[in-house]
Amino acid sequence: MQISLGKIADHVGGILEGDGEIGISGVAKIEEAGKDQITFLANPKYARFVETTGASAVIVPADFSSASSRALIRCPDPYFAFLKAVVLFHPPHPLLEKGIHPTAVVGAETDLGDDLAVGPYVVIGKRCRIGHGTVLMPGTVIGDDVCIGDQCVLHANVCIREKTRIGRRVIIHCGSVVGSDGFGFARVGQKYEKIPQTGIVVIEDDVEIGANVTIDRATLGETRIKRGAKLDNLIQIAHNCTVGEDTVIAAQAGLSGSTHLGKRNRIGGQVGFAGHLTVGDDAAVGAQSGVDKSIPDGEMVFGYPARPIRETMRVMAALNRLPDLIREIRQMRERMKALEKKTRK
Amino acid sequence: MQISLGKIADHVGGILEGDGEIGISGVAKIEEAGKDQITFLANPKYARFVETTGASAVIVPADFSSASSRALIRCPDPYFAFLKAVVLFHPPHPLLEKGIHPTAVVGAETDLGDDLAVGPYVVIGKRCRIGHGTVLMPGTVIGDDVCIGDQCVLHANVCIREKTRIGRRVIIHCGSVVGSDGFGFARVGQKYEKIPQTGIVVIEDDVEIGANVTIDRATLGETRIKRGAKLDNLIQIAHNCTVGEDTVIAAQAGLSGSTHLGKRNRIGGQVGFAGHLTVGDDAAVGAQSGVDKSIPDGEMVFGYPARPIRETMRVMAALNRLPDLIREIRQMRERMKALEKKTRK
Amino acid sequence: MQISLGKIADHVGGILEGDGEIGISGVAKIEEAGKDQITFLANPKYARFVETTGASAVIVPADFSSASSRALIRCPDPYFAFLKAVVLFHPPHPLLEKGIHPTAVVGAETDLGDDLAVGPYVVIGKRCRIGHGTVLMPGTVIGDDVCIGDQCVLHANVCIREKTRIGRRVIIHCGSVVGSDGFGFARVGQKYEKIPQTGIVVIEDDVEIGANVTIDRATLGETRIKRGAKLDNLIQIAHNCTVGEDTVIAAQAGLSGSTHLGKRNRIGGQVGFAGHLTVGDDAAVGAQSGVDKSIPDGEMVFGYPARPIRETMRVMAALNRLPDLIREIRQMRERMKALEKKTRK
Repeated sequence: MQISLGKIADHVGGILEGDGEIGISGVAKIEEAGKDQITFLANPKYARFVETTGASAVIVPADFSSASSRALIRCPDPYFAFLKAVVLFHPPHPLLEKGIHPTAVVGAETDLGDDLAVGPYVVIGKRCRIGHGTVLMPGTVIGDDVCIGDQCVLHANVCIREKTRIGRRVIIHCGSVVGSDGFGFARVGQKYEKIPQTGIVVIEDDVEIGANVTIDRATLGETRIKRGAKLDNLIQIAHNCTVGEDTVIAAQAGLSGSTHLGKRNRIGGQVGFAGHLTVGDDAAVGAQSGVDKSIPDGEMVFGYPARPIRETMRVMAALNRLPDLIREIRQMRERMKALEKKTRK
Repeated sequence: MQISLGKIADHVGGILEGDGEIGISGVAKIEEAGKDQITFLANPKYARFVETTGASAVIVPADFSSASSRALIRCPDPYFAFLKAVVLFHPPHPLLEKGIHPTAVVGAETDLGDDLAVGPYVVIGKRCRIGHGTVLMPGTVIGDDVCIGDQCVLHANVCIREKTRIGRRVIIHCGSVVGSDGFGFARVGQKYEKIPQTGIVVIEDDVEIGANVTIDRATLGETRIKRGAKLDNLIQIAHNCTVGEDTVIAAQAGLSGSTHLGKRNRIGGQVGFAGHLTVGDDAAVGAQSGVDKSIPDGEMVFGYPARPIRETMRVMAALNRLPDLIREIRQMRERMKALEKKTRK
Repeated sequence: MQISLGKIADHVGGILEGDGEIGISGVAKIEEAGKDQITFLANPKYARFVETTGASAVIVPADFSSASSRALIRCPDPYFAFLKAVVLFHPPHPLLEKGIHPTAVVGAETDLGDDLAVGPYVVIGKRCRIGHGTVLMPGTVIGDDVCIGDQCVLHANVCIREKTRIGRRVIIHCGSVVGSDGFGFARVGQKYEKIPQTGIVVIEDDVEIGANVTIDRATLGETRIKRGAKLDNLIQIAHNCTVGEDTVIAAQAGLSGSTHLGKRNRIGGQVGFAGHLTVGDDAAVGAQSGVDKSIPDGEMVFGYPARPIRETMRVMAALNRLPDLIREIRQMRERMKALEKKTRK
């Protein structure tokens, strides 16, 4: 199979310099690419390869300047464009065939959209609504009164508890749990009594949730993951939290109850948030930080406890000098004594 | 639907001041509540709202003093009482209908109690005993020789490995794993050989376990979660650990092998415990701490490594002054030199 | 049932001193063992018990010197040998009966080996190949084009995504996910667009993976867990990582994308690795460390950020002295002032 360079440029959204009729038969790394292949240059360090590569065409940064006559596709993000080209040559085969597998159990009064793919041993509760084109992989369990929008993919063994509301084009990876009870107990004497968790979880459009994530339902009201947020694997979102639009959270991070993240936050792996905090928009938190205070718009914090990154860096640098400092102070103590002795005379 | 104020006071276990015949039709926040609604006051900051709220009745702290003639229900924990009232107006519908779904697979010689709700695609091993009134949600898998008490709820896709023993009124949330092999290997030359994990897990009465938790079986003997302990999501309990009565552990915390927690511990999120430690009763560990030493009764520790909270706070405060300290020492060095020069003369 | 001491010595791979015909009927701790039982001595502290125990035989270290006439089995690792003896007396019953359960769904063109045990509600995709003697526990879901070798055990509710390749004698515990999409997004304006994850995961021979682990597929190419590596529960392995031969990783640790661990690494619990790092062979990382730099062969690091263990210990020790240091510097400041005043005269 050959694809014309013009078609590839269109598909990746780049500007073509060269003959659009050139036929391309595959993709490769810049050092390895040969005739009829397309490659990419993301790191300026490798710019010299654009001259020497055997590839018939190269995807380059928009502002790349080249003396070579090789065909180029200019893109703002060449690596991402290249990955789109990879998909063009290796289109993913569908996860599941269309249709409702005969072993799927569907509750009464549940409304199934058109064009679904529902795998073996999926269980859907009563009074649910599943949108058009949604894919439910094998072993997924959906409680009563759940609403899932169009074009979602729920991977194998996902659990969605009752009353959860999920938007459109949401992807949830294997083993994740949405709508589990919030962790709430009232101390009665020496024991704990369970506080009923009667709220829900809302997942808005275009959210992606990794594997084995847990998102708890609210005590009252909602836990909400807003439009376009992206959660990695093994993340914990406690009851009554909000994750803002287009916020990304790396693996194994955790939010305690009633903490609200703003828009476009970038949260590192294994970060922990205390409860009842508010994080502004465009904030960032370095990996493994322990956040015990709210964070204003645009701030970047880091550390345990998390502080503005410059402060933490300053303290960490000082800390490395601490053993030498102790030695110096010990010497100064001696010099001080000597001086005091002298001046006493 | 209206419920009389007297009935509500009974249900929440409070003392009524006012007309028990007043009909209440719903619940609301104190700023938003209107006629025929009940609300609550937990935070003294909002006490003035008790006079101005539109609500027909207010749940207040036991010692609340009011000049108003509004109907009150006095309770030790008004928020918890209010949540009980919420449940009265919005009773949870059952997770699952009673009965054994025809697709459930039940092993030979397994003894099922009365009044069970066993969902689609549940698999129960051989020689198990499941108590009365227990609910097994869809996709749950129970190994051979497992014993589960009365009135338990195992949510969807929970895995219980062979020989596990679970008490009464235990709740286990979606995706959790009880009885997986402990992480034990013997180094033989350059490689590792698996150490057989022949022990079991015991979960006592009234334990609640969050979603996607992992509790490993013992190498020999037992891993045991004692009566009334509450575990949040994504927690790791290694082989041969004990979690004491009424101990609460927040999300993503982990215990290494053979560590024993006492009664009524409060363990923060993302805390890690080394192995072979012993924690006394009524101890507390701050979030993200790394515990490398045993903890006596009643102690509160925090930090990495975890130390008594006052020590850690003192060190952290000192740490913030460290960059200024370095500057000061640099100045003292100069002043010292100057002094030494002077006194040499 | 009695087993001869000679047979036990053979089974545990030890050297017998005494009568191989002695019949042994069970195992016990050294303080509790009685006639016809076998016990072990691992800790030299308890050596005196070898004389006084009621056991008929004791498994002892290879170099143990005894004046007693009691029958001994000498082994390099007595505890491990004892556990092998335990298994001899309490052989594990098989997790599952041989055969393909009639409810298992097997895709077209999938090739099943001999002697399999495939449980209820297992789903296997198309064009898979499952080796001989492999066990697939209930609720396990295997995507299309997956290859699994001989003698593997996949516990209940494991998810293996499409195209994953698994070697021989691999054990994967309940709820783990292999082959989920890597966490890759390209920022396009204010939003994120998904980067297709077209690579795979390869798990080599003799790997063991704990419960509720997540291992992401590569963006391009492979994520690879090499021969003999052992992963505990709730671990995150991001896209394009490598875990080297015989490396062990404790629970709740996480690797960011494209990080490569060497052979025989020992990684503590809750450790986090930044992305694009390289760790040499025989390195070790202390629990909860945050690794932000590559680690050479044989190095042991610890801390947040992780540094060679001696450095971190030196800094931590200094840190504990910091509050006293501040007090001392305050005093020196006063003494300095006094000296300066004096010398000014």
